Amino acid sequence: MHVVKIGGNVVDDEVALDAVLDRCAAWADPFILVHGGGKVATQMAAALGVEQTMVDGRRITDAATLRIVTMTYAGLINKTIVARLQARGVNALGLTGADGDLLRAHRRRNTTTDFGFVGDVDHVRGERLRQLLQAGFQVVLAPLTHDGAGTMLNTNADTIAAEVAIALGAGTRLTYLFDLPGVMLDVADVGSVLPELDRQRADTLIAEGRVVKGMRPKLDNAFRAAAAGCTVRITNQDAMEGGTWIR
Amino acid sequence: MHVVKIGGNVVDDEVALDAVLDRCAAWADPFILVHGGGKVATQMAAALGVEQTMVDGRRITDAATLRIVTMTYAGLINKTIVARLQARGVNALGLTGADGDLLRAHRRRNTTTDFGFVGDVDHVRGERLRQLLQAGFQVVLAPLTHDGAGTMLNTNADTIAAEVAIALGAGTRLTYLFDLPGVMLDVADVGSVLPELDRQRADTLIAEGRVVKGMRPKLDNAFRAAAAGCTVRITNQDAMEGGTWIR
Repeated sequence: MHVVKIGGNVVDDEVALDAVLDRCAAWADPFILVHGGGKVATQMAAALGVEQTMVDGRRITDAATLRIVTMTYAGLINKTIVARLQARGVNALGLTGADGDLLRAHRRRNTTTDFGFVGDVDHVRGERLRQLLQAGFQVVLAPLTHDGAGTMLNTNADTIAAEVAIALGAGTRLTYLFDLPGVMLDVADVGSVLPELDRQRADTLIAEGRVVKGMRPKLDNAFRAAAAGCTVRITNQDAMEGGTWIR
Repeated sequence: MHVVKIGGNVVDDEVALDAVLDRCAAWADPFILVHGGGKVATQMAAALGVEQTMVDGRRITDAATLRIVTMTYAGLINKTIVARLQARGVNALGLTGADGDLLRAHRRRNTTTDFGFVGDVDHVRGERLRQLLQAGFQVVLAPLTHDGAGTMLNTNADTIAAEVAIALGAGTRLTYLFDLPGVMLDVADVGSVLPELDRQRADTLIAEGRVVKGMRPKLDNAFRAAAAGCTVRITNQDAMEGGTWIR
């Protein structure tokens, strides 16, 4: 089993997206592709005059924003990817966490910030994902969950990828594809990519301020999956080999 | 197997939608719920300043409109229904015709009108729909297909419901839920509902101008499914029994 998370930068870039989908089509193994939201939701919110607020890189999701992310993530982005995979002969099925009750979540509890309709994952139905993969479908997951009471929730794609990999069990491969070739000590120096990274080293780098802010939640997710026995790698779309292995 | 098409009027009306979903949750049999688009796409197009043109009740779908219908049908409406069914304990899976290559279509060929990204169905993968139903999923289908070359297409929900019922084979139940209690000789007179209707009688009524215009494509779909051995009924959400049986 292979869980691949593609970031918003890939989703926003037609050429990069097609390159990733070409690679997906070449894989023989079952995979789950988790996609981020990219800029489309932000652009749609601007076009509709719905003000957006970000706190710690997370989008505060009021009711109007929930409609926008449900439309853009589950509708536009998810189906664009599915149609393009189908054009490559990949039997893709585009889903959210509400479909098949795959990812159940609760609204984030936070004493300082009300994130609105942002969901933290409680449970992943790994057996249903396996069932779909074994039936010959490749799953494309939008970064949305549900609360089990009829409401969709906006959930970080990095977190969904980690939770899904953990639910599929030890030995699952988890790849974070983003716009850098790996975890870098200096983003300007390609030679500074760390071939591997463990929690201790990461904590040191974070304490020294040598890991960029946006990288930290991704690393937390990656280490959580690695601790659960998954094989985790952070890399970019141009380098399916290499990158940083998370130990 | 039961294929149920719910119209835009149901989708637009929270109370009517919840009533239909309550009924779905009470069914023991596998079902495929095909939903229409309702007014959301039109409202979204207006909010985004994308002009809409309707010809013969069909939406001319340019590239901007295709994005809007993909967002609203596959995203907002489909996932709203899925989340609400899951809240009722129904293991719903929300899909389009692109997912699993379930409904492949071609862009409509028309010498007088260019409908843009409107798809006429070529092939339904009935075996994959059966596979999903047999695996315990109830399928919620948005009125979208794909061309197999990476492009989504906008397809009439009545047509999708008929094509799906036909692909599932003779004996499949097909119910068109809409805002009237059945085919009526006088829309102001509830007593004028025809308990059953065959093609010959329908042709006579159409020739006499006694069937409302919007009813004709629905009837064409209904008779096509009936001719293929499906059990077809046209009714409203308040009357799951009764309505007009299509012979």
